[in-house]
Amino acid sequence: MTSHQPSGEETGNVVALCGGVGGAKLALGLYRVLAPDRLTVIVNTGDDFEPLGLHVSPDLDTVMYTLAGIANPETGWGRTDETWSFMQALAALGGETWFRLGDRDLATHVERTRRLAAGDSLTAITDEFRRRLGIRARLLPMSDDPVRTVVHSAQGPLPFQHYFVKLACAPAVTGFEFDGAATARPNPVLHDAIADPRLRAIVICPSNPYVSVDPMLAVPGIFEALDASAAPIIAVSPIVGGRAIKGPAAKMMAELGVTPTPAWVAEHYRALLDGFVLDRIDADMIGRPPVPCQAAPTVMTSLADREVLAREVLRFADRLRRHDQAA
Amino acid sequence: MTSHQPSGEETGNVVALCGGVGGAKLALGLYRVLAPDRLTVIVNTGDDFEPLGLHVSPDLDTVMYTLAGIANPETGWGRTDETWSFMQALAALGGETWFRLGDRDLATHVERTRRLAAGDSLTAITDEFRRRLGIRARLLPMSDDPVRTVVHSAQGPLPFQHYFVKLACAPAVTGFEFDGAATARPNPVLHDAIADPRLRAIVICPSNPYVSVDPMLAVPGIFEALDASAAPIIAVSPIVGGRAIKGPAAKMMAELGVTPTPAWVAEHYRALLDGFVLDRIDADMIGRPPVPCQAAPTVMTSLADREVLAREVLRFADRLRRHDQAA
Repeated sequence: MTSHQPSGEETGNVVALCGGVGGAKLALGLYRVLAPDRLTVIVNTGDDFEPLGLHVSPDLDTVMYTLAGIANPETGWGRTDETWSFMQALAALGGETWFRLGDRDLATHVERTRRLAAGDSLTAITDEFRRRLGIRARLLPMSDDPVRTVVHSAQGPLPFQHYFVKLACAPAVTGFEFDGAATARPNPVLHDAIADPRLRAIVICPSNPYVSVDPMLAVPGIFEALDASAAPIIAVSPIVGGRAIKGPAAKMMAELGVTPTPAWVAEHYRALLDGFVLDRIDADMIGRPPVPCQAAPTVMTSLADREVLAREVLRFADRLRRHDQAA
Repeated sequence: MTSHQPSGEETGNVVALCGGVGGAKLALGLYRVLAPDRLTVIVNTGDDFEPLGLHVSPDLDTVMYTLAGIANPETGWGRTDETWSFMQALAALGGETWFRLGDRDLATHVERTRRLAAGDSLTAITDEFRRRLGIRARLLPMSDDPVRTVVHSAQGPLPFQHYFVKLACAPAVTGFEFDGAATARPNPVLHDAIADPRLRAIVICPSNPYVSVDPMLAVPGIFEALDASAAPIIAVSPIVGGRAIKGPAAKMMAELGVTPTPAWVAEHYRALLDGFVLDRIDADMIGRPPVPCQAAPTVMTSLADREVLAREVLRFADRLRRHDQAA
């Protein structure tokens, strides 16, 4: 990854919906091409859990570390320049070590847990963390109320991280459930961010539809707020050439009897979408999804790739808005 | 510190009462000269507290790390071969860092906190930790119930660690209180350890009388169990030449209008003592305390010093027992 400076030349406010690694890449692209304080990222908290009694928010942390430039590029989770003394000592004491927590990463979880116990909201804690890490974008957990993704599988119901990390996504999935979603309230500032009349675009990042984006849409009020927004809503396909760029999305689709294609993803979000971005290698599928499509290079390897895709998505949103106004 | 092998030639069971650093030195000496599994150390938990929401037991950890050979010899607290990534990251997030927790040390606190929350007792957790660290002595927290030492001072009442670490013992003390002691139950196996008819000696280690030993004696049943024991009870003076070898004991005495002498310490424990060990430089005070006294080299610099003092204390106990039987 090169270290060229962010351009920040793009204007307007943008909202992104985001899960972990894949989504965070585009969130970083948007963050870098937009002027400071213009980006709001709404992040899935359905895979939050409490290993060792600590409140870990994997997606929130991945996005936060990514935007702060301290994400570990090799692992796809945790922090760069990490040490592992804690885990070594924990193993010697007989503690559970299947969920790896680095020494620096641990500070996030310990301090978050302490502040939650003291009555602070996840939103307030996240906002302080991102400010202290020098991030000039808003990071909003989808809700301050607990929502826990359960993966139904051949091995029975599994808490998400148990399925994802401990079992390395091995069990065949049969469905998903978002415990607590029905009574969860959306993040308290989410509605205002989405209803912003100056909003340039809402971007559903290339995250797992089942376990990164659906938990957000399951919180009553979030779908409705998105649906009511005047800004164009664009999803970027996490499926490229029949495979997921990162994570188990394609494997899940296959297990659920779905052929993993961008068209299926577009159909999945259909009720919300104004436009859909798929990879250039899937350009032959343009026309099949029931919304305007745009082909773009969606496999983000370099920092420049992230920025190129971010600009493409914003240009596409602008065209959709003009088209909409002309109609 | 040399690394010569423990001799382990001494027979019989021994119980030691112990606070932090000073007491842990003699506990280590006893541990090394006694055959394996012969030593039981009852440890003060009055200075336990919950920084960052984690249950820290400073004295228990000092004794555990000392007996396991992993105590930090420079600081007098924490572990050797430590790293500090967690604290650095915590500071960057705006967390409280006045109580320094190393990355390896943190594993003890996180796992203890998790297990306490799961309903395990401090005794059971401590026993598993010491076994996993290869310690063949029993470590008994004085109680599984919370007791919290409060230091009354010119600045008002202060939680012990606030006084000790954050304020570096600066405020003048006016008294002490052991919150929770009145309703705390002694460690569940403490009574059997002390009532053991084969017990060779009970040793009150050279710890702070006010804040290391008195909290133990304040738990109903502990004084009574000690008083009823057939074994000789010997205290080792933490005051040498009018000064405390370690910590604020002498400063506290002066602030409370007491001249810091071994004689005062012996008087403080008088109701329990069968014998008292003071340093050779205080040998002129022999005869002033109202119990049999023994002069010995009590300033333990090397590992050999710890073992020499441990043997002296055991010999003294044996002489007191024979004298008692002859009388």
